[in-house]
Amino acid sequence: MNRPSASRSRSRPSRPHQPRTASFAPSLRRRNTSQSVQGHDYDDPEAASAVQADAAIASEIAEIKRYEDFTTIDWVQDAARESLRRKARRKARLSQPSTYTGRVFLGRGRGKWRRKIAEAYDAGQAWIVVTLVGAAIGLNAAFLNIVTEWLSDIKLGHCTTAFYLNESFCCWGAEGGCVEWKRWSGVWPVNYVLYMLFAALFALTAARLVKSFAPYAAGSGISEMKCIIAGFVMKGFLGATTLFIKSIGLPLAIASGLSVGKEGPSVHYAVCTGNVISRFFDKYRRNAAKTREILSASAAAGVGVAFGSPIGGVLFSLEEMCNHFPLKTMWRSYFCALVATAVLAAMNPFRTGQLVMFQVKYDRSWHFFEIVFYLLIGAFGGLYGAFVIKWNLKMQVFRKKYLSAYPITEAVVLAVVTAVICYPNMFLRIDMTESMEILFQECEGGKGYDRLCDRDQRWHMIASLFLAFTLRTLLVIISFGCKVPAGIFVPSMAIGAAFGRMIGILVEALHESFPTSTFFSACLPDQPCITPGTYAFLGAAAALSGIMHITVSVVVIMFEITGALTYILPTMIVVGVTKAVSERFGHGGIADRMIYLNGYPFLDNKEEHTFGVPVSAVMSSAIACLPANGMSFRQVESIMNENAYQGYPIVEDVSSKILLGYIGRTELRYALDRACKDQSATGSSKVSFHTSSNPAENDKVDLSKFVDPTPLTVHPRLPLETVMELFKKMGPRAILIEYRGRLTGLVTAKDCLKYQFKVEAAGHGGHGAGIGEDDRMEGLYRVISRVAVAVDGVWQKGLGVIGMGRRGGAVRLNSPVVIRTPGQSAEQEAFVIDEHGGEELEDRGRPGSR
Amino acid sequence: MNRPSASRSRSRPSRPHQPRTASFAPSLRRRNTSQSVQGHDYDDPEAASAVQADAAIASEIAEIKRYEDFTTIDWVQDAARESLRRKARRKARLSQPSTYTGRVFLGRGRGKWRRKIAEAYDAGQAWIVVTLVGAAIGLNAAFLNIVTEWLSDIKLGHCTTAFYLNESFCCWGAEGGCVEWKRWSGVWPVNYVLYMLFAALFALTAARLVKSFAPYAAGSGISEMKCIIAGFVMKGFLGATTLFIKSIGLPLAIASGLSVGKEGPSVHYAVCTGNVISRFFDKYRRNAAKTREILSASAAAGVGVAFGSPIGGVLFSLEEMCNHFPLKTMWRSYFCALVATAVLAAMNPFRTGQLVMFQVKYDRSWHFFEIVFYLLIGAFGGLYGAFVIKWNLKMQVFRKKYLSAYPITEAVVLAVVTAVICYPNMFLRIDMTESMEILFQECEGGKGYDRLCDRDQRWHMIASLFLAFTLRTLLVIISFGCKVPAGIFVPSMAIGAAFGRMIGILVEALHESFPTSTFFSACLPDQPCITPGTYAFLGAAAALSGIMHITVSVVVIMFEITGALTYILPTMIVVGVTKAVSERFGHGGIADRMIYLNGYPFLDNKEEHTFGVPVSAVMSSAIACLPANGMSFRQVESIMNENAYQGYPIVEDVSSKILLGYIGRTELRYALDRACKDQSATGSSKVSFHTSSNPAENDKVDLSKFVDPTPLTVHPRLPLETVMELFKKMGPRAILIEYRGRLTGLVTAKDCLKYQFKVEAAGHGGHGAGIGEDDRMEGLYRVISRVAVAVDGVWQKGLGVIGMGRRGGAVRLNSPVVIRTPGQSAEQEAFVIDEHGGEELEDRGRPGSR
Repeated sequence: MNRPSASRSRSRPSRPHQPRTASFAPSLRRRNTSQSVQGHDYDDPEAASAVQADAAIASEIAEIKRYEDFTTIDWVQDAARESLRRKARRKARLSQPSTYTGRVFLGRGRGKWRRKIAEAYDAGQAWIVVTLVGAAIGLNAAFLNIVTEWLSDIKLGHCTTAFYLNESFCCWGAEGGCVEWKRWSGVWPVNYVLYMLFAALFALTAARLVKSFAPYAAGSGISEMKCIIAGFVMKGFLGATTLFIKSIGLPLAIASGLSVGKEGPSVHYAVCTGNVISRFFDKYRRNAAKTREILSASAAAGVGVAFGSPIGGVLFSLEEMCNHFPLKTMWRSYFCALVATAVLAAMNPFRTGQLVMFQVKYDRSWHFFEIVFYLLIGAFGGLYGAFVIKWNLKMQVFRKKYLSAYPITEAVVLAVVTAVICYPNMFLRIDMTESMEILFQECEGGKGYDRLCDRDQRWHMIASLFLAFTLRTLLVIISFGCKVPAGIFVPSMAIGAAFGRMIGILVEALHESFPTSTFFSACLPDQPCITPGTYAFLGAAAALSGIMHITVSVVVIMFEITGALTYILPTMIVVGVTKAVSERFGHGGIADRMIYLNGYPFLDNKEEHTFGVPVSAVMSSAIACLPANGMSFRQVESIMNENAYQGYPIVEDVSSKILLGYIGRTELRYALDRACKDQSATGSSKVSFHTSSNPAENDKVDLSKFVDPTPLTVHPRLPLETVMELFKKMGPRAILIEYRGRLTGLVTAKDCLKYQFKVEAAGHGGHGAGIGEDDRMEGLYRVISRVAVAVDGVWQKGLGVIGMGRRGGAVRLNSPVVIRTPGQSAEQEAFVIDEHGGEELEDRGRPGSR
Repeated sequence: MNRPSASRSRSRPSRPHQPRTASFAPSLRRRNTSQSVQGHDYDDPEAASAVQADAAIASEIAEIKRYEDFTTIDWVQDAARESLRRKARRKARLSQPSTYTGRVFLGRGRGKWRRKIAEAYDAGQAWIVVTLVGAAIGLNAAFLNIVTEWLSDIKLGHCTTAFYLNESFCCWGAEGGCVEWKRWSGVWPVNYVLYMLFAALFALTAARLVKSFAPYAAGSGISEMKCIIAGFVMKGFLGATTLFIKSIGLPLAIASGLSVGKEGPSVHYAVCTGNVISRFFDKYRRNAAKTREILSASAAAGVGVAFGSPIGGVLFSLEEMCNHFPLKTMWRSYFCALVATAVLAAMNPFRTGQLVMFQVKYDRSWHFFEIVFYLLIGAFGGLYGAFVIKWNLKMQVFRKKYLSAYPITEAVVLAVVTAVICYPNMFLRIDMTESMEILFQECEGGKGYDRLCDRDQRWHMIASLFLAFTLRTLLVIISFGCKVPAGIFVPSMAIGAAFGRMIGILVEALHESFPTSTFFSACLPDQPCITPGTYAFLGAAAALSGIMHITVSVVVIMFEITGALTYILPTMIVVGVTKAVSERFGHGGIADRMIYLNGYPFLDNKEEHTFGVPVSAVMSSAIACLPANGMSFRQVESIMNENAYQGYPIVEDVSSKILLGYIGRTELRYALDRACKDQSATGSSKVSFHTSSNPAENDKVDLSKFVDPTPLTVHPRLPLETVMELFKKMGPRAILIEYRGRLTGLVTAKDCLKYQFKVEAAGHGGHGAGIGEDDRMEGLYRVISRVAVAVDGVWQKGLGVIGMGRRGGAVRLNSPVVIRTPGQSAEQEAFVIDEHGGEELEDRGRPGSR
């Protein structure tokens, strides 16, 4: 190793001696380290320029460093690169005045100002990006709201004055409809058929767009985004096409009447916006870890505009989306959500001036005896979540297995079935948001919709609500996950609201039957005591919390969308009970379960494990490492071609395995290519990864500047839990296992996850959607597929007529991202466990065993 | 190292051979590691019992492991210990059925049930603790509210029917006073003097109690708690005495009329409650890291009950208190805040049934043109925060230097001065919470207090409000930090509300002067357009955000205490501007600045640094390490006596420095003591810290089981930033620097902080309260001290009369916790930088240099 003087004499003067390597700036971090140990060498122009050269090469690598698809990014390295970039900038700033010495005062002044502006731009880049992203999200949300309204109304009729106006704009100012707005026909069965045809058409268009142009635009995207924000790379998932298709497909999917919500997709298009816009800025194009900050902020803005709940969005981003949420990100999220909501409010798409979705005002406060019923509603939320998650996951597996070839048919059939089922029920017939608004209202002031508040209709209403909540639950189970943009928040809330209102009416009836019982002694005599609307409100909170397993953000979102502040304690109680019940029955919200089902490499921060094994039990010890010296270009190339590892440890020699550093695959690729081009290295040229070799050997190509000399290393006996903490909190791609200076193994987050799944499978036979009913499914499948083939043929022809063609038919929609193949059944095998089990696994990588 | 078989043959069979060491259970983590690599040896009773023995010794050490005062806890080790404990429990569970084989079925069944209950108890312990803590906090809050009300009223008069009733309870049901409640005298000057005397008496009592019994109960305690939750140890700061004195002193301090708030102290007594109650539970008594989870939750409950804002409390705990806030803690905080607020609501201390502090309902929404004024209010918040922080810190330094001997006099003088200054102003005269309530109200509905809404009084009101906000600012600067329980939230909010209302009235006047200007075109003609109350509301949010540098929690707290939901966007805009301005002018909120001033070792998560140096620049390389073999008891003892290091690395031998492990001071102390007692080791007995030594040497005392074989190690060239991230995120006490298996240095969080301060001092000459005006201060001091000595004499006599005596006079109140001495002046010297600077520092610890 290098004492400073030694290192300077070694690396800096070596440059003049090697003119052909002059284009290689010195090693990134090593130089960074060896020169300015005290940070006081600002006045040394040579050091400054050297650091700048380091930064230049770092940014050059960053430019080409495209993380491969389905890998994870290296937070530690990205952070180091960013820190280097900033240091170079500071150096440049401090050394620049001397370069201006020869100029006249005026020129100096101007240069100073230009520099100051450049600095301010660099410092403020994050804020510029966040502002732009927020504004774009707000505009997009306003556009979506308008289009969704218009599409929903066009199913019923049209505006005779201007076709592009929806009913409320067409009849602006008039109460309860106007002559300008005409239904399609005077005969109701024609209207009904047209309504269904429109629904089918919208579903068809949405599914067709998704299938042809952006398969990633299907579904809600929350689980994938969780992984992406945690560092997973999925190319195209946040691309411009996905953004565009999701923005168009979402209004269509909602207007088709499917039981899907808009918040998951809102988060998705918001995060896409963040990704697309940040690409235009150097700082983010080159740093995948930095980009994640923008993505977190965008997620907050997405929820913010979907619900009109900016703070709820920030908390959702914090609680659900981000494993890694430093306060700086929180502040950015706050700002992004603020800008997005402010833009949306300024656009004012509904012309109501309201940001609040449906403001309610409850005249009465709650009574302590009602807590009994709140507990019931809370328990319902937990059970609802567990039930829907379980069956929806089964449905997803079924869909992957049997329906993946017919996504369009599926969506259309679902839309038609939904329309047929929902029409007869008064609560299902109307839009979900509207139904929630109705159910939340208290009965005072004649706000009752369709006799909801009438005393003599009570049992009828209870039956209606029960039917609504049951049918909607089934529809959500089969609809969520179909290949159109589709969220699960609002459907869940609507279900919860129906259930809650039902309970509320029951309690009201109970109170009126026994008004003098001691249980109701807190009620004032001869006055209404129970407000069924509050039960609907609490039911919605419970269902939302049950399906997503979030708490604080649900409470805040509920307040921001309704403003029912006196009910904060009841809401907290309900959500608390829901959370407790959920934890008893389920293992994570639907997003987490889908991550698990899809087998994404995601280390969940919420879970805590006790394995009681050292990291050596999990590491792979048969790793491809490169000796620091003596390898030829050809040998290195062949090692790289043999495997697809993301990087290679550098060792002194293969027998001693003294660890010297780590080189990423991208860096190695780049280094080899540069060397071939600039130094006309041939296949037989020797490479050197470490400068401590004899400098006289001039035929070697020095690649040491591309090696990270300080990868994270741990002792082989360090408990696995601690290593997992390191992965979760520091976010390296791989951790090397070093024992007394020697490399003994390498562990990645995926290794840890594999082990975790194995232990879980052994411990309690795997949790969640066990899919054993293959036979029954096969039978069902035969029926479905026969229908689907027939129907699909019809669509194909129909499509030809409306001129969409069959472009992009080759796109594999079938399970967009799978690490395991779709046919692979149970979750226990979510990761293919390698064959070395038991003792062998225990043995391998044990340092004593070599 | 050990392959499993080797390790078993080495350590397990060694026990029978060493009967005298039988009481030493095998090494904690090493055994943990070497035995159950696969986690599949549940059926091995010997392994199970060995693990249990491990756990037993771990808990025994935990029992004696009292972290020394003013040190930091080791999160990594504590987590490992907890994981071991859980593993032992699982083993016990799985191996127990076999031990029951001989019993009758009934007995087995009973045992099973008992075990199940024990397990449930263990799993639910956290929830039991959180519930108890929440309930206790809620009860205490109710008690405090009642006492505060009574004390505030007793200054004015008394209840003739029962002296213990405050005015509102005395006159329950009557509007505007009643005959049972009597003022002290019919003559107002007598009342006024009595009022002042009461104020002085309350301040005296509070200060006296604090000085005599619990010096730590002074001030707000937020900054100290931040450090404690981050892992710092301050004995007694969260003790029962502090809890008791803080709970008694707080109502006295508030009733004395000082410009202090109750939220900081509320958080402090809440966290004390959490600490005191969790001591009764094994799980927490033994694990300092686990206890921090409860402390975070208690902090949330503290804010929750202080403001009636449970979700705001959770977010405050997240944003301000906790560096380390996993989602599990969030969920606990949620629950704790819920229980505390529910208990407080059930106690209903004011009999108003309101949890909300002062509900306001604004009839009008805001207009976009008002954003101009919102920006102004936001900027005010930032400037207010920067100004108060700067001058309050100067005041604190002055107080430490000159007033530390007269804390009681100071408090009394302040109380009298406050009373004298505040009486003439209509907004200062009344309680701060009450004044906020008045200022927040809109003018509609005749709610105006004392002609606040009268148009002809407008300029008078503006002058009055300006005076109120100026005087209160000065009073806060001199009062916050005096030696009574004192917070800064509510005073800041009251100041902000006064300023905001002033702006609001000005805007209203402006609108009325130019009603037709285009600027006001959004206003409807002939109708009020501006609501000054909303400006007061926003001003309060701005000031709170400016002083604490928090954002999201301020927004949520403001909504929870008022319910003004339509103003969510304006609040976010104002707080956003405040935050931006604050960041421009200051470096962290008042709590962070006080941490800095007091020199606590606290790594701030919010800050990001670019040092560009490797850890070797910061590490200490001259470390006391112990060779694994060959040292005698006496030698070890003498090394321990020579220094006060918290632990010692174990190396193979002192020349090679091959790193074998790390032993904490506590563990070493314990091991030596046990060896002396159980094995009658003498001073000349040799000790061994590593089992790989020849087992035939029987005269050696084996202490290897106390050694942590896998301390966190890093490469000497790892960037300092990454090491600091490790400290922040993983929380070890020390990180060892290892190069090719050899120990080259050791770094602690304090080393990093020292370096950081040094760089900051060199970079921009230190920020914040530079204290250069020593001369002026000295002059001021001479005056103050002469007065103080005289006054203090009077108090001493007075105290004798009311019988409080002078117990505990020896307690050093003077700056309760100081790492640096109080006389030491500027912040640049907050950490004494060691003499090795420049090249020497750069050199030391460089691996090449040995």
